Amino acid sequence: MTDNGISRRRLLGTAGATGLALGAAGGAVGYAAAPSSGSGSVGASGASKAALASLGADEVMFHGKHQSGITTPPQSRGHLVAFDLTSGASRKEVARKEAAALLRRWSAAAERLMAGEPVGSDDTAVARDAGPSSLSVTFGFGASFFSRTGLEKRRPAALDPLPDFSSDHLDKARSNGDLWVQIGANDPLVAFHALRALQKEAAGVARVRWQMNGFNRSPGATAHPMTTRNLMGQVDGTNNPKPADKDFDERIFVPADGDPAWMAGGSYAVVRRIRMLLDDWEKLGLKEQEAVIGRHKKDGSPLTGGTETTDPDLEKTGPDGRLVIPLNAHARITRPDQNGGAAMLRRPFSYHDGFDAHGEPDAGLLFVCWQADPMRGFVPVQRKLDRGDALSEFIRHEASGLFAVPGGAAKGEYVGQRLLEG
Amino acid sequence: MTDNGISRRRLLGTAGATGLALGAAGGAVGYAAAPSSGSGSVGASGASKAALASLGADEVMFHGKHQSGITTPPQSRGHLVAFDLTSGASRKEVARKEAAALLRRWSAAAERLMAGEPVGSDDTAVARDAGPSSLSVTFGFGASFFSRTGLEKRRPAALDPLPDFSSDHLDKARSNGDLWVQIGANDPLVAFHALRALQKEAAGVARVRWQMNGFNRSPGATAHPMTTRNLMGQVDGTNNPKPADKDFDERIFVPADGDPAWMAGGSYAVVRRIRMLLDDWEKLGLKEQEAVIGRHKKDGSPLTGGTETTDPDLEKTGPDGRLVIPLNAHARITRPDQNGGAAMLRRPFSYHDGFDAHGEPDAGLLFVCWQADPMRGFVPVQRKLDRGDALSEFIRHEASGLFAVPGGAAKGEYVGQRLLEG
Repeated sequence: MTDNGISRRRLLGTAGATGLALGAAGGAVGYAAAPSSGSGSVGASGASKAALASLGADEVMFHGKHQSGITTPPQSRGHLVAFDLTSGASRKEVARKEAAALLRRWSAAAERLMAGEPVGSDDTAVARDAGPSSLSVTFGFGASFFSRTGLEKRRPAALDPLPDFSSDHLDKARSNGDLWVQIGANDPLVAFHALRALQKEAAGVARVRWQMNGFNRSPGATAHPMTTRNLMGQVDGTNNPKPADKDFDERIFVPADGDPAWMAGGSYAVVRRIRMLLDDWEKLGLKEQEAVIGRHKKDGSPLTGGTETTDPDLEKTGPDGRLVIPLNAHARITRPDQNGGAAMLRRPFSYHDGFDAHGEPDAGLLFVCWQADPMRGFVPVQRKLDRGDALSEFIRHEASGLFAVPGGAAKGEYVGQRLLEG
Repeated sequence: MTDNGISRRRLLGTAGATGLALGAAGGAVGYAAAPSSGSGSVGASGASKAALASLGADEVMFHGKHQSGITTPPQSRGHLVAFDLTSGASRKEVARKEAAALLRRWSAAAERLMAGEPVGSDDTAVARDAGPSSLSVTFGFGASFFSRTGLEKRRPAALDPLPDFSSDHLDKARSNGDLWVQIGANDPLVAFHALRALQKEAAGVARVRWQMNGFNRSPGATAHPMTTRNLMGQVDGTNNPKPADKDFDERIFVPADGDPAWMAGGSYAVVRRIRMLLDDWEKLGLKEQEAVIGRHKKDGSPLTGGTETTDPDLEKTGPDGRLVIPLNAHARITRPDQNGGAAMLRRPFSYHDGFDAHGEPDAGLLFVCWQADPMRGFVPVQRKLDRGDALSEFIRHEASGLFAVPGGAAKGEYVGQRLLEG
């Protein structure tokens, strides 16, 4: 299903039973957790040491068919950052060479960081003592990258600008960009360290265009690891395609014979900073919120009954003759079978940047979704949402990006090499 | 040592061995971890479930001699937020009554939140499914609170404004405030939920003056839980007083017969937003950074040798006849024995709010320190730092607050009741 395996490194020779933490989440997205060894009798002390070593020791593989950070279980801390190349527009050949060298450095750094190793002798050491903590690093290319480097002919058609949506309030300065990096880790210092290290490698070649910080639940905070909630309190991602689905690869990844060839094994990331108008949302009562979403807040089950994974009964009417799940309910509009089978893999982070000048929380979702083709994934769903989603008055799309994320690097290769040297 | 015990709740009846996670950190700050039960043979599956329940299940007690969040082990996520009362200056009696009612509501909410319970029927549910995740909530009063509520005569002398320091670049809008709340939790959604719930309780009575978000290592990211690092990569808090020290209580908490009487069991929090000029700092080589600090970056040991906890040899000279630990090294200046025995309990969070308008990281330390008397704790140390700390050119104090944090509430009491109704 995926080539980015997770291995567990033993940071503590004294650790007792391991095999912690990633069981449920890892299994559900198709990872094989490393076999646990030495599962003997464990007292409080042994268990405690094992716990200390568990989160830090989890390692995501850099090399593989796909890049990490797509089917990798969502981490508790994330950074999204876009860079623009600084080389002048008249020097496309130089820009391409600089970009190739940067991607080579970035790939080498990501491989070391994801293994929990310092990048170089001048490493900032912020993450020293910690293990990899499930760090993933994902690199992508924005449409502007191709014109800036003279590679227009290799620009995928899938990078055509997203259509305008009437509900967009996009800040161009925080949208798009030549290069995009997604960093995720289960430790905030590990994630910060990776961000600084990659930024350092870009010095003189690319400058930060925008950067956003996000978070998800900490591993172990809930006994229901697959149930993530967003800052509206809603269960999020229920209908995500599963790697075990037979059409998962087809929907999420560019096939081996796909176009362009350098994108084989790659995917397209749509990134939206979606502000939640929480002061308004929280004024609604529970029943009102549930009508907006079409699901019960408590467990994510459809208003028509069952569990989180039960199919909603979209025709069911109540005693008053009205549809139980309203026509404009978010869950109805986003159902794949209501959108010609469109499917994308949502893998968001929440964000919270304090309060804005009006005293309202600057918080919401760093929506990241993955698909083989944005025109069959994000776009048709967002078009429907844009026309009639009951949720739309409580959210605002404030930034947007679309990036081509090539397949994973083979050993000895760097991410994007097939584009830059192909 | 402290009355805020930690208990472990069983979220999963099927969990095998527990007693995870807080062992080392908890022990070192004087907590007795709840006894582990059922430490039988644990396979990968059992250990996995135990791990899922561990972080979320850890609970900090609301009631106690002291408030939580002082000797509570630092959590991975934190919010600092200051509120100003909104009642007009001519209505001091009303303001006092409103404040008393608010503290009563806040205390009730904090008790429920810290137990992992929803606050009310209109709870946002953001943290639903999660356990308490070591949530702590700490309430304090700023100097302005007392004039605004007609309680000038009860204002502690210790709340006199901090002296100006030459290195201060303070933003008044992000400094001080009538009321201060510190929230910490090992899960970001639990912390956010608490912030929103407490803000909701304040509606119509107090408005947010400023709010800052911070983080620390995730539990389990490192095998060395007592070794925290700041965003400069330095081991931080090495010389913190330990609850086991015989003069710990005397230095950190106002005694039972202290003045004013309502502060018995309380402490004073100095809060400083300390920006780190990381782009400059990271240009230094390792040796240069270590000379600034006076300690090895790798393990926090003094440049004169030993381990993190070895006393530095402040007189030692090198082959060149110079002091091995320079006169202006940060570690020399902050040594308690160089400051008339001054001591404070540092309990900071790191912060990272992206990049500023100049493209520099808006990141650093949300420095929070605790002491029985700021004039014997923070002030003498900061005065010395202000005059000659080699670190000062790499940091900038951007905001400052000083708050009186009363003792913990007894059962049936609310925090601050002895001030507001005494």
